[in-house]
Amino acid sequence: MTRGTSGAVGVTAASGFRAAGVVAGLKNSGKPDVAVVVNDGPLQSAAGVFTANRVKAAPVIWTQQCLAKPDAATSQMRAVVLNSGGANACTGAQGFADTRETAEHAAELLDCDPTRVGVCSTGLIGTPLPMDLLLPGVDAALANLSPDGGSAAAHAIMTTDTHAKTAVARTGLVTTGGMAKGAGMLAPELATMLSVITTDAIADSATLARTLSRAAELSFNRVDSDGCMSTNDTVLLLASGASGHELTEPQLLDAVTEVAQDLALQLIGDAEGAGKEIRIEVIGAESEGDAVAAARGVARSNLFKCAVHGEDPNWGRILSAVGTTDARFDPNRIDVAVNGVWVCRGGGVGEDRNLVDMSGREVHVLIDLHNGNASATVWTNDLTADYVHENSAYSS
Amino acid sequence: MTRGTSGAVGVTAASGFRAAGVVAGLKNSGKPDVAVVVNDGPLQSAAGVFTANRVKAAPVIWTQQCLAKPDAATSQMRAVVLNSGGANACTGAQGFADTRETAEHAAELLDCDPTRVGVCSTGLIGTPLPMDLLLPGVDAALANLSPDGGSAAAHAIMTTDTHAKTAVARTGLVTTGGMAKGAGMLAPELATMLSVITTDAIADSATLARTLSRAAELSFNRVDSDGCMSTNDTVLLLASGASGHELTEPQLLDAVTEVAQDLALQLIGDAEGAGKEIRIEVIGAESEGDAVAAARGVARSNLFKCAVHGEDPNWGRILSAVGTTDARFDPNRIDVAVNGVWVCRGGGVGEDRNLVDMSGREVHVLIDLHNGNASATVWTNDLTADYVHENSAYSS
Repeated sequence: MTRGTSGAVGVTAASGFRAAGVVAGLKNSGKPDVAVVVNDGPLQSAAGVFTANRVKAAPVIWTQQCLAKPDAATSQMRAVVLNSGGANACTGAQGFADTRETAEHAAELLDCDPTRVGVCSTGLIGTPLPMDLLLPGVDAALANLSPDGGSAAAHAIMTTDTHAKTAVARTGLVTTGGMAKGAGMLAPELATMLSVITTDAIADSATLARTLSRAAELSFNRVDSDGCMSTNDTVLLLASGASGHELTEPQLLDAVTEVAQDLALQLIGDAEGAGKEIRIEVIGAESEGDAVAAARGVARSNLFKCAVHGEDPNWGRILSAVGTTDARFDPNRIDVAVNGVWVCRGGGVGEDRNLVDMSGREVHVLIDLHNGNASATVWTNDLTADYVHENSAYSS
Repeated sequence: MTRGTSGAVGVTAASGFRAAGVVAGLKNSGKPDVAVVVNDGPLQSAAGVFTANRVKAAPVIWTQQCLAKPDAATSQMRAVVLNSGGANACTGAQGFADTRETAEHAAELLDCDPTRVGVCSTGLIGTPLPMDLLLPGVDAALANLSPDGGSAAAHAIMTTDTHAKTAVARTGLVTTGGMAKGAGMLAPELATMLSVITTDAIADSATLARTLSRAAELSFNRVDSDGCMSTNDTVLLLASGASGHELTEPQLLDAVTEVAQDLALQLIGDAEGAGKEIRIEVIGAESEGDAVAAARGVARSNLFKCAVHGEDPNWGRILSAVGTTDARFDPNRIDVAVNGVWVCRGGGVGEDRNLVDMSGREVHVLIDLHNGNASATVWTNDLTADYVHENSAYSS
């Protein structure tokens, strides 16, 4: 993996894309808050995955509709407008009208159909967007589009992120890159996970949809910092075909997964209030679904997450969390290692827990269900007093 | 509801029962740690509900088997032995042998079949019970049985509880009482919820099983302080028939539910590290299941629980949590009130959030799904830095 360097960062690492990030005044801090990513083609293939929350923000509903027209297999996307400083969630009919107006405004300047403009928003929910600031921001971003704009765009979508998140993967002559923001719902006010991934491979939208679905499953869907799910989560994959080269579908999947996993791990690494990054690896499962269920069960146990914060290799809390899932296993055969020490063998006491060193920032939990050959990994964070402090501050 | 007074407290409030609590030395603190409850009849009807965790402690497996012999409808229980200071969970074959030996030991002294002796344990998991201390403790408890022993028994099952928990309900000439321990999994090392409820009503085991199942659903299953589930959770219901009176099944259900709810709310009130007790009431649901699902989704949202800690009436986090459940509702019709102020109307901004007073210890969240006539209430706690501190201390 090559992190993008100046001039070829994130969403503009792939050829055929321009981007910009500007200050529109949505954030009180005066930091950049509006980004635009434009696909100059020749292709405008696109696919998206969205929050499973049934309370969806207006931009999620809009962008889902765009990608369904005429159908997901042939959907096209010319541009994406993203803003921080306001989620436009729980804002009713006015919120949807504001999103549509944003897309229409950009579409007019780009001379394309409004349904070819995706919209993503992140920030406080329940508050209307200040359109008198947002639309001039879109104008400014479109006026500043550049093939070097990937870094500026990545900065403009940050909320409580401490740094911009970009990644690049190269596959022969094809480049795939992306940006993301969010801290896995660890931040105040439902900080959203947004990501745009671009590739200059030749690919149609149906291929992108299959690829993004699986890549997201192996990356963004396997980071779970606090089990909460935003109203705005969106990941978009755009292909320009500007490299003139096609990848095999497995090659494309590898490239997109590499970028998505890199971004997802940057999210976990930047999760607010977290002191540890925890990799929960389940092996010996009957199915991948079982492995994910068991790992996610552990990732969502507050008791386990507190124990990791206290550097306590508490395998009892791990077993108890696995036991609450529907993953198939025999409680008398499960083994658990923490940072390489098998503290639990056969569902009971294993090696000396005092041998476990949890002083580093990275913690590896390995769970062997002894029930098959499938495996999966889920990443999470510890639960800390800082998390509580950051999420209990009065929101307004 | 009448709380038991001296001489008629908890499990010995109902006639036909004796109990004791003694110091066996299982706890390093030297506090009482072994309790016995004996049913002197004339009936020995019994029923139980147990943790749904598939990692079950030896005493859970034993007691479930006892109540299944010959079948749940005719099962009989002469006594229950309970110990704190060790959960006997994840202890393998030796752990089960220890539980059986405990039951056999008590059965010999009580001159009954060992399968008529239930066993409950709570404390650290993954550590064998010191049988050389436990069995003499059972002897001492049986030697100290008293119709006034309810308070001593309630004290002997405490782990991190700050006070003993008992309750009594009277229905004409019938008395129903109970004791409980645990802090809803909020305590270090999977502190377990244990409860024994006794009644002197005439009732068979089949009736008790139906009654306990529904009463637990309306009480213990609706308190959810941190979403974690113990390996040892057990609730037992014993009937002596000593009052000579029978209740109608609805009357019995009312009495048992009253005691169980009283105990469950005492658990929430004593949850470690918690600063607030939160009552999440869902109305307008299509089914009771939908109402419970929506309320539980909110109760398990760390972001929401942090907001309550910060006295922030953050309805966005509430909507987002409801949106992650499978409860049926229209996101554009949901209303949410916090302590009487409808801060969310029709899925958007409602009354002024500054009108909400959350300074008290009790917080009431009322959610109207506008989708039917069913309702349910789930109780939980806020998420605090104290919770993290208490659960991240090194366990040994």
